[in-house]
Parts: sequence; C-alpha cells; structure tokens
Amino acid sequence: MTLATSGLTCPAPIGSNDRVQLGHGSGGKLSAALLRDHFLPRLGNPILDQLGDAAVLSLPTGEIAVSTDTFVVRPLEFPGGNIGALAVHGTVNDLAMMGAEPRYLTLGVVLEEGLPFEVLDRVLAALAEAAAGAGVAIVAGDTKVVERGRADGMYINTTGVGLLHPVVRPAAHRAAPGDAVLVSGAIGRHGMAVMALREGLEFETTITSDTACLWPLVRGLRDAVGPELRVLRDPTRGGLASALNEIAAASRVGIALDEAALPVPTDVGAACEMLGLDPLYVANEGVLVAMVPATLADAALAALQAHPLGAGSRRIGTVVSQHPGMVVLRTALGGTRVVDLLPGDQLPRIC
Amino acid sequence: MTLATSGLTCPAPIGSNDRVQLGHGSGGKLSAALLRDHFLPRLGNPILDQLGDAAVLSLPTGEIAVSTDTFVVRPLEFPGGNIGALAVHGTVNDLAMMGAEPRYLTLGVVLEEGLPFEVLDRVLAALAEAAAGAGVAIVAGDTKVVERGRADGMYINTTGVGLLHPVVRPAAHRAAPGDAVLVSGAIGRHGMAVMALREGLEFETTITSDTACLWPLVRGLRDAVGPELRVLRDPTRGGLASALNEIAAASRVGIALDEAALPVPTDVGAACEMLGLDPLYVANEGVLVAMVPATLADAALAALQAHPLGAGSRRIGTVVSQHPGMVVLRTALGGTRVVDLLPGDQLPRIC
Repeated sequence: MTLATSGLTCPAPIGSNDRVQLGHGSGGKLSAALLRDHFLPRLGNPILDQLGDAAVLSLPTGEIAVSTDTFVVRPLEFPGGNIGALAVHGTVNDLAMMGAEPRYLTLGVVLEEGLPFEVLDRVLAALAEAAAGAGVAIVAGDTKVVERGRADGMYINTTGVGLLHPVVRPAAHRAAPGDAVLVSGAIGRHGMAVMALREGLEFETTITSDTACLWPLVRGLRDAVGPELRVLRDPTRGGLASALNEIAAASRVGIALDEAALPVPTDVGAACEMLGLDPLYVANEGVLVAMVPATLADAALAALQAHPLGAGSRRIGTVVSQHPGMVVLRTALGGTRVVDLLPGDQLPRIC
Repeated sequence: MTLATSGLTCPAPIGSNDRVQLGHGSGGKLSAALLRDHFLPRLGNPILDQLGDAAVLSLPTGEIAVSTDTFVVRPLEFPGGNIGALAVHGTVNDLAMMGAEPRYLTLGVVLEEGLPFEVLDRVLAALAEAAAGAGVAIVAGDTKVVERGRADGMYINTTGVGLLHPVVRPAAHRAAPGDAVLVSGAIGRHGMAVMALREGLEFETTITSDTACLWPLVRGLRDAVGPELRVLRDPTRGGLASALNEIAAASRVGIALDEAALPVPTDVGAACEMLGLDPLYVANEGVLVAMVPATLADAALAALQAHPLGAGSRRIGTVVSQHPGMVVLRTALGGTRVVDLLPGDQLPRIC
C-alpha cells in the first residue's frame, strides 16, 4: 500500500514538496517535518516548543474563561485577512466579550491533502501576527490531514483561555431597560468582503474585512464603566440582528434601534443591495456591541473612541421594557419594523 | 438564494428533518434548534447551558494542563466505539499523560451537510457517556456546517483542561537508564478495528477498539509511584514505536524492547499480517506506556493491574544508556532490530 497517496482523486507528483500530503498527518517523520518547517518557526514559544501531550499553564487566578470556535471560511484568503487571522480574532474576541483578558490559545488544524504550502504559510504567518497583536500565545496544537475532497483547503479550531475580571462580568442576560446600546464601528464589512470576493463583485474600492482583536476596546470599557458594563457581544455569524435578538431573549427586554444611527458603510450597503442582503444580518469580526446604563453612555463612548478601532463608535439604540425578547427598528420615515432572527443563514461559511 | 441547499451535489428533500442542512450552521433559528434538540439534551450541564461566549471555570489550582486534538477517523463508527467516544478519550488521555486530572472539555464540531441526525445523535450519546465516565464536563462548544463533499460526515475538535499534580510530573524527557518500560494492555486494537472494518476483513471474532479513559490508571500510578513516575505516553497515531522513539529522542536514551513480551492479541497479529502492517505502528486509544525506576516496577504493575483496564499490564523493556535516541527490539530468536520512526503513516485517519 502506498498510503501516502491513498485517497487521491487528482494525484500530486509523488514526493512533491510544495503541497500537503496525507503522510503529513501521520505522527511520523513527515508530521515532525511539518511542525519543524511550517508551524514552529511561526508560532513557537517556550510553552509550545515543549511539544508535550498537553501544555502547562500557570494562571494568576483560579477563575478563567474558556471559549472554542472552528473556522471554515471560504475562501481561505480575503481582502483584509485570512482564516488564520480570523481564527485568532474570533476566539480572543469571545473571551473579551466575557470581560476576560485573552492569554492562551490552542490550535487544531485539519488540512486537505494538496493544500499548497505557500497558502498554509501565509495563513500561519497571519495567525502568528494576530496572536502577537492580541497578546496570546499558542500553547498546544494538533494537525490532521484528510484526503482531497474531504475538506476545503483547511479548517482551524482555536480554543482560548482568558483571565476573568473579579467584578466586571458582562453577560447577555444583564441588559436592563434604559441601557444605551453602543456599537464600536461600521457593520457588515467582514461578511461583505467575503461575499463580494465569492460573487466576483467589483466596486470602486475593495471592501475589506474588519477582522481585529477587540480586547483593547474591552479593556478601555472595563476601566471606564466598571461593573456596570452589563453586556458585550461581538456580532459575528448572523450579524447585529442575531446578537441583539439573543440578548433581548436572554435579558427578557426589548431593544429599540434607530435606523439612521446604524453605521453601514456605503460600499457595504451597495453590495448588500446588489445581493439582496440586509446588513443587519451580515457577519462582523472586529465590532462589538455594548450595553451600559444611559448615564454611563458618554463615558463608554469616550473610552471606545480613544482607540483607533473604536473611532466610529456610536449609540444605536436603547433597551426598553416593551416587547420583551424583540428587536425593533425605528426607520428613518418614522415607522417601525421587527428585526427577527433568521431561520437559517443568508451567508454560509463566512467564518 | 436558497442557501439551505446551496452546494448540494445530491440534494436531500427540502425541509428534510432527518439530516443536517447548511442552515444548521448559520447562527440563526436552525442553529438554535440543533443545539436544543441534539446537543444540549445529551451534553448539557450548568456551565454549558449558559450558552455564553465563553465558559467560566473555577479552578482550585493556578496551574493547569491544556491539550487539543482534532478527530477525523473514518468511518465515524467502528466496533467498540465511534468518533464521539474517541474525541473524549483522546484528549482526556493527553491530559492524563501529564499526570493531570481531566476536568473540562470544549467541543468544536464540523458537520457535513447531509449527515443523518441518527448518526449525529449516536456520536453525541457516546461522547456524553465517555465524558461522564471520565468525569469531565463539556463546558463550551461550537458547530459549523460545510457543504456536501467538504468534509467526511463530521470532524470533532476537543480541547481539555486538567489539574496538574504539584509534584508528580511525568514528561517525555525524564526517562533514565535502568527504568522499566511498562505497557498497560494489548496493543494494536484501535487501529486494526478501524482497518478491518475499512478493508472488509472477517475474522472469527470482531476486533474492537480499545478506546478508553486512562485517567484511572494514571491516578493509581500517581499514588503508587509518586514523583518517580517519570514518563507516561499513550501510543496513539504511529503506535508504540512512534511513542517510544519520541521518548528516546527527548530523553537522549536508548530503549530496548523484548519482542516476546509485547502483548499483541492473536486477531490483531493476524489482521496485521494480512495487511502487511507492523502492530508496533498501529494506533492504540486505551493503552499507556509508563517508565519508572526498576525498583518501583512491581509497585507500578500492581497499581495498573488493580484496575480492569490494566489487567494485562506487563513490562516490555528497559531504558538503556546505549544507542541514545534509538529503540531496539530483541527478537525471540536472539537477534535485534531497530524500530525506527516511519516516514509517513501506515494507517491514515485512524483518529
């Protein structure tokens, strides 16, 4: 049996050095070479370099946040980022939305046989850069290889460990009537950057993904608002509409949005119109929603705007006691419409 | 766009309730239904049920072990287990090999559109049973759905958190000349159970996977041997040969194995011979290798044998100062042969 090539539907040259082979997932010499030549030079650190069965982490606190996310975005590379950057930002942002400081990530990679190493290396470079930018170390990893046609280039799971704040604990169930609803920047960029690429849409400017680490914004909010930082959420899959619906349901409150205040960039709006999509449901990867008592809204906005990533922060609505569990949009014409949860997804495989 | 069926190469009936659809990965109502109807009934616990962006864990210690593993076994179900059981055992065993007590798991699932829910439910049931048996809670999860032909039923990542012992810290670099090399049971069962199924081999008895949680054996060894429990390793991908080679390299020692002492079951040996495989390279999922000073070998074996999972424990060799980095087998006929690391894998997608 020549197992290194079993399962090939479109064989690469035997011994080809520029593409992933099944044997790279074997746990043998090829696996060791994959680690040595591609992963460790970009991601290595004193913990990862030990290559033990598990990483040993010393934590200054006994209470931690743990989050996991798998990334299957198609295509792997898009304007403004790639799956590697996304895999870091997605998970560190989930930690940050708990008010936790991201510290460590684990990395689980599924590679499709035949993936060019140049793509893998670009993804790993972006992943390393994003991890350094977010202040997290990759402390454990695992790589598997599947036959051609059993994946789509690569899938990445990251699981993150963050340090919780002793008293600042935002949660989806803590929104209260009267709270201001803030958003840290323009919406819809990530989803439309990926969709425009997939659909071959051309605009005067290229829509770029907003993929970014939100921890600096959260740190600023923690300092400025303290325990009254009631809700944080990054509106990824399902967009702002889905995130707000989840919060409304969890807190048993209504949310009233002001359509005129929604920060939808012109190019995102145009692309959405062309594809028949609603920007409220389009994924973001570098935007957060915060809910704070109205009296603290200005302080919160000032904290967000103090960081370049939050320069476009604004208030977009209010938490209300009416219509609990529902999100309602007040349109520019004075009408209202319900912003419901979608049954499925308007944009599959966006993250 | 009817996104719930985009990417279909072999369409399921629209609205079909017995198979995974793309929309189940959307973050919308179908995603909520998938969680409510399939995941939470089997895996729910007070931490997971909060469905936050991240789980909050309270740890009695500031030093933890973290390990990640992705499972891509083909087929998903095999005699003795399925990918769900494997995904729990694989990661809790990696923690146990650090001497750590497994406590928490996160779960990242990639589902292929069209996967029958009955398969998903069996996998989740086995996963839940394995987690309960291992004493770990699933505390965070994520599910993505990809189009048909972009996965192979399902892939599962688990990332585990375990509590380290203050002084018992086995590690691959701690083997010392004179140490006894122990194995906790018969080798080659998991790999050959999967391969026999794939190849359609028929024997008088069905070879079953040994997939199991090794933590009870490790707890026994910790108590019996203490800090002199130098090395623990579960020989999964690449089998016993690969695990021992890694230890020999990390500890800069030689390892001499006694071929006559290797516990290869008759049916595993027969299946290996038929397929031209060497059982030393076949994956195990419920066996550990331990290295302890020779003076503690009997105590260690007694501790292993006290548990049903370790009933077949035995000494298979010795750590030596000769041939550092090399594993050598002393054959029944008095000869010796080098047991090298394979370049690739003789058995792809076994875990």
